[in-house]
Amino acid sequence: MALRGGVPTDGGAVGVEGLRLVEEALRSGSRIEAVLFSESGAKHRDSLAPMISRRQMAFPVLRTTDRLFEGIADTEHPQGVAALVVPRKYEVTDVMARPEDACAPLLVVLAGVQDPGNVGTILRTAAAFGATGVVTAATGQSGTASPFAPKAMRASAGAALQIPIVSGMALGILLTQLKLNAIRTLATCVGTEMSAAQPEGPGLSLGVRSEQAASATSAARTLAPWEVDWCEASALLVGNEGAGLPEDVVKGADQCVHIPMSTLPSSGQARVESLNAAAATAVLLYEAYRQRKSRK
Amino acid sequence: MALRGGVPTDGGAVGVEGLRLVEEALRSGSRIEAVLFSESGAKHRDSLAPMISRRQMAFPVLRTTDRLFEGIADTEHPQGVAALVVPRKYEVTDVMARPEDACAPLLVVLAGVQDPGNVGTILRTAAAFGATGVVTAATGQSGTASPFAPKAMRASAGAALQIPIVSGMALGILLTQLKLNAIRTLATCVGTEMSAAQPEGPGLSLGVRSEQAASATSAARTLAPWEVDWCEASALLVGNEGAGLPEDVVKGADQCVHIPMSTLPSSGQARVESLNAAAATAVLLYEAYRQRKSRK
Repeated sequence: MALRGGVPTDGGAVGVEGLRLVEEALRSGSRIEAVLFSESGAKHRDSLAPMISRRQMAFPVLRTTDRLFEGIADTEHPQGVAALVVPRKYEVTDVMARPEDACAPLLVVLAGVQDPGNVGTILRTAAAFGATGVVTAATGQSGTASPFAPKAMRASAGAALQIPIVSGMALGILLTQLKLNAIRTLATCVGTEMSAAQPEGPGLSLGVRSEQAASATSAARTLAPWEVDWCEASALLVGNEGAGLPEDVVKGADQCVHIPMSTLPSSGQARVESLNAAAATAVLLYEAYRQRKSRK
Repeated sequence: MALRGGVPTDGGAVGVEGLRLVEEALRSGSRIEAVLFSESGAKHRDSLAPMISRRQMAFPVLRTTDRLFEGIADTEHPQGVAALVVPRKYEVTDVMARPEDACAPLLVVLAGVQDPGNVGTILRTAAAFGATGVVTAATGQSGTASPFAPKAMRASAGAALQIPIVSGMALGILLTQLKLNAIRTLATCVGTEMSAAQPEGPGLSLGVRSEQAASATSAARTLAPWEVDWCEASALLVGNEGAGLPEDVVKGADQCVHIPMSTLPSSGQARVESLNAAAATAVLLYEAYRQRKSRK
C-alpha cells in the first residue's frame, strides 16, 4: 500500500491518509479498495463506522502497527487512518457537457502547474465555485503535478475525489477538442494595471510577460475578469508558476483574461510582479461564479 | 548567519535566499547587513552588481564555499546567493493612516494563520491588491506564522519586504486601536450558499461554522463580498486554517463577509466545506481592489 508518491497502483488506486481525507473518500462514491487503521488510529473507527458498514461498500478493513503505519505514511505525524481509493475515471467529453445546474460548462485546464500544493488548492477552489471539471496537461516545457499526489490531495481537502478530473491529457488534443465543442479558451495573464484599453501596459503574468501577451493578442481579446462573459462555455487555461503558458497557447486562445493589480503611486511600477497561480485562479473562478449565480 | 528558521537576529535582521528574493531585498529599501555568495553563486554577482554598488548601500559582500552555503541554506538546491536584511519597522499607527493613493486604509489582520505558505501568499496578494498593511496577531488558540520565516518569505515572492507589516501584535489591543481609529472590522466567514437574506444557511467558514457566525451576528451584518463597501476604512480579519476566528472576535466584529460557494444540485450540500485561507483572502482583496479602482 503505497501512500507516498501519489502514483496510482495497477488497479488505478491512490492512497489517502488522515481522518478528513478518508471521510471524503468514503463520501465521494469512489471505489474503495481497503481502509487501514494503525493501533493508535483505531480510535477513529467509530466516527467512520456508519460509512464503512454501509452494505454497498464491501472492502477489507485492515489493521497494522503504529510503526508499520509510520513507515508507509506520507505525513510527519500520521493520524493512523488511510484508504486505498480508485478515483472515478472521466473522459474529456464528460467534463465538456453542459452541467445540469449551470448555464454552460466551465473547465479549468492546468497546463504546467508544477507545485502539488497549487494543484490541490485549485481543485478545491474549482469545486467550491462550481467548475464542471479540471483537466491536467503537460506543456512542452513542463508537466502538471498529479492531482492525486499526497500533497495535492491534502491541499484539495478531498476535492480531488469530488470534482471530475481528466489527468495527463496532451494539450494539443485538448485544445482541438475544445474548439470542436465550441468551448471558448481563456488564457490567464496576470500582471499589473492593464485594461483592454491599454494592452501595452507593464507587468508580468503567470510567467507570460504582458508585453508578449499584448503582442500576441489584440486589445479586444485582453479582458479584465469582470469584462469576461463567464456564462459562455469556457475553459480557463492556467500556466506554469514560473514560465506561464507557452506563447503559442496564449496566441491560440480565444481571449486573454488579466487581473489588474495595484501600482506604486510614486513610480507607477507594480507592487508585485504577479499573483500566486492558485490565488489568481481563485479570483477568476469567484468572478465566474458570481456572474453565473446572478444570472440564474 | 541564520537563513533557517526566519527568526530575526538581535539586530532585527532576517535571512533571505535565492536570486529573486535578494533582488527584492536590495530593491525594497530595507537595510542590508550583508550579501553572501557561494562559489557557484558568484555568477549571480554581475546581475546584482548595479544594485550592490550603489553608494548608499554600504554593506559587506561575503564569499563562502558551496559546502558551507549548503549548510546554512534553507532550500534543497540553493542558488548560492543570500542576504541579511533588516525589514523596516512599522507601528500600527503607520498602517492605519490613509494612504495617498486610496480612499481609505485597508488592513489585513492575520489572527492565527499557521501555515507559512498561506501567510506568504496572503502578503503577496495584499501587496498586489494595494492593501495598506498587514498585521499578524496571535489568538488564544494559535499563533500566526512569522511573515519573515523562509517559507513565508518565498511564498510572498518578496512582498514581505515590500508591504508594511506589524508582526506579533496582541489581538485585543489591535481591535481596540481599530475601534478608536474608526476602522471597521470585517470577520471572514467562508462557507456555502449563505447570503445576507439567509444567514442560517449551512456551511463551514475558515473554521467558524456559519451557524455560529449567524447566531453571533445579525443578518444585516453578514454580507457577500460584493455587498461590502470596501471604500470604507477596513480591517479584514483572517483566522486559523482549521479553527477559524475565535467566536468572540466574530461576535465583536462590525461585519462578517462570507464568500458564497456552489452546492450540489441533488442534495443542496456544499461541494467543499471551505476555501483555502489564502484563496479566500485573494477573492476578498480582489473585490476590494475592484471597487476601489472603479471609484477612483
